[in-house]
Amino acid sequence: MTTLQLMGQQAKAASYVLAATTTADKNRALLAIADQLEASEAAILAANAEDLAIADGNGVSPALRDRLLLNSSRVQGLANDLRAVARLADPVGEELDGKVLDNGLRLCRRRVPIGVLGVIYEARPNVTIDIAGLALKTGNAAILRGGKETIHSNRILVELIRTALDGCGLPADAVQFIDSPDRALVGELLKLDKYVDMIVPRGGAGLHQLCKEQSTIPVITGGMGICHLYIEPSADFARAIAVVVNAKVQRPSACNALDTLLVRQDAVSFVPQVAAALAAKGVELRLTAEARTALGTPPAGMVVADAGPEDFDTEWLGLVLGIKVVADIDEAIAHIRAHSCDHSDGILTSDVQSAEHFLNQVNSAAVYVNASTRFTDGGQFGLGAEVAVSTQKLHARGPMGLTELTTYKWVARGDYATRR
Amino acid sequence: MTTLQLMGQQAKAASYVLAATTTADKNRALLAIADQLEASEAAILAANAEDLAIADGNGVSPALRDRLLLNSSRVQGLANDLRAVARLADPVGEELDGKVLDNGLRLCRRRVPIGVLGVIYEARPNVTIDIAGLALKTGNAAILRGGKETIHSNRILVELIRTALDGCGLPADAVQFIDSPDRALVGELLKLDKYVDMIVPRGGAGLHQLCKEQSTIPVITGGMGICHLYIEPSADFARAIAVVVNAKVQRPSACNALDTLLVRQDAVSFVPQVAAALAAKGVELRLTAEARTALGTPPAGMVVADAGPEDFDTEWLGLVLGIKVVADIDEAIAHIRAHSCDHSDGILTSDVQSAEHFLNQVNSAAVYVNASTRFTDGGQFGLGAEVAVSTQKLHARGPMGLTELTTYKWVARGDYATRR
Repeated sequence: MTTLQLMGQQAKAASYVLAATTTADKNRALLAIADQLEASEAAILAANAEDLAIADGNGVSPALRDRLLLNSSRVQGLANDLRAVARLADPVGEELDGKVLDNGLRLCRRRVPIGVLGVIYEARPNVTIDIAGLALKTGNAAILRGGKETIHSNRILVELIRTALDGCGLPADAVQFIDSPDRALVGELLKLDKYVDMIVPRGGAGLHQLCKEQSTIPVITGGMGICHLYIEPSADFARAIAVVVNAKVQRPSACNALDTLLVRQDAVSFVPQVAAALAAKGVELRLTAEARTALGTPPAGMVVADAGPEDFDTEWLGLVLGIKVVADIDEAIAHIRAHSCDHSDGILTSDVQSAEHFLNQVNSAAVYVNASTRFTDGGQFGLGAEVAVSTQKLHARGPMGLTELTTYKWVARGDYATRR
Repeated sequence: MTTLQLMGQQAKAASYVLAATTTADKNRALLAIADQLEASEAAILAANAEDLAIADGNGVSPALRDRLLLNSSRVQGLANDLRAVARLADPVGEELDGKVLDNGLRLCRRRVPIGVLGVIYEARPNVTIDIAGLALKTGNAAILRGGKETIHSNRILVELIRTALDGCGLPADAVQFIDSPDRALVGELLKLDKYVDMIVPRGGAGLHQLCKEQSTIPVITGGMGICHLYIEPSADFARAIAVVVNAKVQRPSACNALDTLLVRQDAVSFVPQVAAALAAKGVELRLTAEARTALGTPPAGMVVADAGPEDFDTEWLGLVLGIKVVADIDEAIAHIRAHSCDHSDGILTSDVQSAEHFLNQVNSAAVYVNASTRFTDGGQFGLGAEVAVSTQKLHARGPMGLTELTTYKWVARGDYATRR
């Protein structure tokens, strides 16, 4: 039996215990982990310093270094997040669709944990605490595989989680950690379908693609969004500018940030107006010929270029926006269908027929009328937590909350019932 | 672009039309297909005769020949099934969890079709009509790949579906058929993730395993059930015998048929009683040493053998039953966890604590108290239709009805809302 198979077996055994653990006991464990985090702050920061020293030696980018970094306030934040998860409602145990069938069987669907989650993520030690907390809350065991850049931080974080679980009388193996940078182990985890019920990639498009291609376990795919806003002349341009700017610049590295603005041909006067606002935020533009004509002279200092053949299939993840002029709403919809990743797309209009047509015809995970695409987020959607954002269509779409870490089983009670 | 890529592109385009088609229009098409089936009966039976002639030439088993066979009453049955699907409620368009968020956004989840289904099945021409009808009802396009043994039957069935769709003003490409026995095309279909949203295998364990291993598209896995009943001394033995016999013999080739009987050590007097009833139905037994001792002298003519090392991991699909004596309910649960396929498992008892413990601890798709495992079925569960039976945990578990052929999108309406 390989190390990973053993981990799988242990995780499965732990998952049975967790599935039968009361909400109160699960919450007690979450609070114990939070306390342990605070109590272990010095040790956590020391381990994190080791990761940072290696990162600095490798000359990592400031952005990556920031993702690696833990400090006192971030540790405190993680502890507080766990306490917030403890306060959320527990979806496990809920019974749905209860009924008595004609054959006399009393039947319902009961929400139960999924079982064992395999979570693969990149250089963010906070994910270790975050996902362990969400898994524990929903009675799932987890096998974690974090980025090699954070292996020292992850090691101590998982140790303290396991210590806290053990102290609460819960199985430490509910949270396990692949303590090796060997990439072959990711491949092995993705095929551990005997024990692992669901793979959650937390990272960029490449990681999601890898999981989709290699996994024999169901994967929550996402990690990428090419997001669109389409504007009609009836929109309130002044407020529409604020929405476009918000969608583009509020957090440009997010997958729900705006990538492409589609402008109806009789609304092209919007182009220079929105460009002026975007220029003030340092946004660059990629323009079709018609959009370039509509823009006229670019605002002073703004970088403007012709849109290349792949620009409308690019997730910018930065301060770049593509602009294309379309003949009508159906051309906008066709463009979105061809270029979107089914993440988040919206319309800016005052016309009710256009709004409904767009909502009906665009089949992205989130579709908006007169709102920023940046709202596609578990917290913003009031889910209390965000496990992942799915852009595939099975099980869950868009932001996933605690409920999406559960499945159901059919519970049937008969009086020695036989099928005719 | 390969033939399959073109089919995928056409299916995706058709799926957009179907998604915007009213329930009334979808039902009209279902009825038109039913009429077309009846009108084309002679041609269907002629095509089916070609498949049968080839099958007979290859000396297929009577069971396979029966699965291939269409006759007048079966064609009539398919037409009637389509009319029944037309009468079912359409889940598409339902809005769930509507709310206004603190940020002012009005949000709900709206049920929408999944998009494009890839359906891979074996030598059953009835699946062609069945799945096309269910897909159409839920606004999904489908790419069908039936068994090569039924290619003539499937070809004409798909032709008449497409004719009926076209006659109703719906895109014929909503239902397409891979008209080639080339197995490489199955592999290509399983990787057509650009266009296909979900793979539904309809067949045995081997087909499901193939799809799980090769597909980059989410798969509804199932196709196999090793089903258990566990009996305690408090059970009403006379009625429990009827349940065991029903679970084993009512349709032994089904995945929800009973495979293993677990008997608590103080209920072993059940063994000879149930054996007598099973012997009368021609059932063979595979017994552990303790079960053999409990049985004593087998009923006259009953085939009885010692259970081999793999017998408790075998889905019998025929008139064979394994029997094992267990010390207590927890040994029964441990056995089920180790050997079940998470399909259907039940307890026979009069003890309420045992019943609840079993329901809580056994995490199969369907768990039963005092009922036959044979109830795990879309029709029996009142779903109106059965698309497939899932034994994986994401998206759907157990029998899947029309609702499980839908997903949802988040629909959000703001007044030029921006994220803080």
